[in-house]
Amino acid sequence: MRIVLPLFDGFTALDLVGPYEILRMLPGAEIVLAGERAGRTVHDGVGGLGLVATHARAEVRAADVLLVPGGPGARRGVADPALLEWIGAVHATTRWTASVCTGALLLGAAGLLTGKVATTHWSAVRELQSYGAVYTPERVVTHPGDRLVIGAGVSAGIDLALTLAARLASPAHAQAYQLALEYDPRPPYDAGALAKAPAEAKALLGVADGWGGGIAGTGGTPPGRGA
Amino acid sequence: MRIVLPLFDGFTALDLVGPYEILRMLPGAEIVLAGERAGRTVHDGVGGLGLVATHARAEVRAADVLLVPGGPGARRGVADPALLEWIGAVHATTRWTASVCTGALLLGAAGLLTGKVATTHWSAVRELQSYGAVYTPERVVTHPGDRLVIGAGVSAGIDLALTLAARLASPAHAQAYQLALEYDPRPPYDAGALAKAPAEAKALLGVADGWGGGIAGTGGTPPGRGA
Repeated sequence: MRIVLPLFDGFTALDLVGPYEILRMLPGAEIVLAGERAGRTVHDGVGGLGLVATHARAEVRAADVLLVPGGPGARRGVADPALLEWIGAVHATTRWTASVCTGALLLGAAGLLTGKVATTHWSAVRELQSYGAVYTPERVVTHPGDRLVIGAGVSAGIDLALTLAARLASPAHAQAYQLALEYDPRPPYDAGALAKAPAEAKALLGVADGWGGGIAGTGGTPPGRGA
Repeated sequence: MRIVLPLFDGFTALDLVGPYEILRMLPGAEIVLAGERAGRTVHDGVGGLGLVATHARAEVRAADVLLVPGGPGARRGVADPALLEWIGAVHATTRWTASVCTGALLLGAAGLLTGKVATTHWSAVRELQSYGAVYTPERVVTHPGDRLVIGAGVSAGIDLALTLAARLASPAHAQAYQLALEYDPRPPYDAGALAKAPAEAKALLGVADGWGGGIAGTGGTPPGRGA
């Protein structure tokens, strides 16, 4: 069970590490952190966090699971033909190809989401739509026929990976991994979606209160930052 | 706002990366990943993931926030006097000292939890009690007078960090970070606690169905693995 997680400068660490902690427990799991060069540190570019690539991308041409994280580097990566070609080539070999957060933009730019219902971080809806995807505000979207599973922003990768574990192993395996991570969430606030966050919190991210995440027809002002 | 996250071999990556993604957004945040040596890769020891230390622990003697992750290395670290001395010395300087998962065992072994209500990963309750702590199955335990905040297993670090962000900045800041991470959890199962997980899932972790997590009086068989 070869699980390939691409690393690129400006990835969001939690997009990758949340799913990693679940998928690494799958029976026979082999984790591949695929960067430009094996052994090279790849930085998230926001807080000084560096993860070490275990393999060079050029060596990795097949995977059972390909999971593409998001981050500022994913937004830049849509203009990197070599990265997009690699995603498309590996996707052709997978049992499941997944994205978390703005990783969906890389799948979109690689041509994998045209005409498909998909999700992404709330700040990236218009970019996702620009690749012909049909945005839905669901947390995890699964297309078994296309071997695709698409997650919403950052922390959605944990819910996505549990969904994948159930399909790759069994629901009992997914439940075991949920217990191992004690994933019994109790957020101290209920502000994890645009429709729920108070205006003061949105203002701290540069998001106008009426802004609907770039969903067609909602209007408003785009965010100053996000993921 | 200096946020110090110690790295040791066998740390659980999500214990650290969940809080990191929140605390790095605090106004003026400076992230310090403190390992044996600056620039050295520290491995989680389970899936091949390596994080790079930004500082040597010996250089780091003060912090605004000290957050100690758990993992197999935390269980080993309770026998490392130098690590425990360092935790105690840095704690003396902090606004808040936090632990996630079995990181609580390191705080316990450093003498910080004697007689205090605390939590940890469900598999480590007896070890926590051995340091004189009073276990509670809450997700996040806060002791403002002692500048301590203690989280349950692995994914609880996200809830803990939002709690800390509210105290260090404001509730609106915490809500903004929750929105930035789109932390609106929808686990596909409800198996994230011993009392909720089905017997088949517990059996996959080597946990007998009647086992109560090592809580005094519940009896049963300890788990074969966990965090």
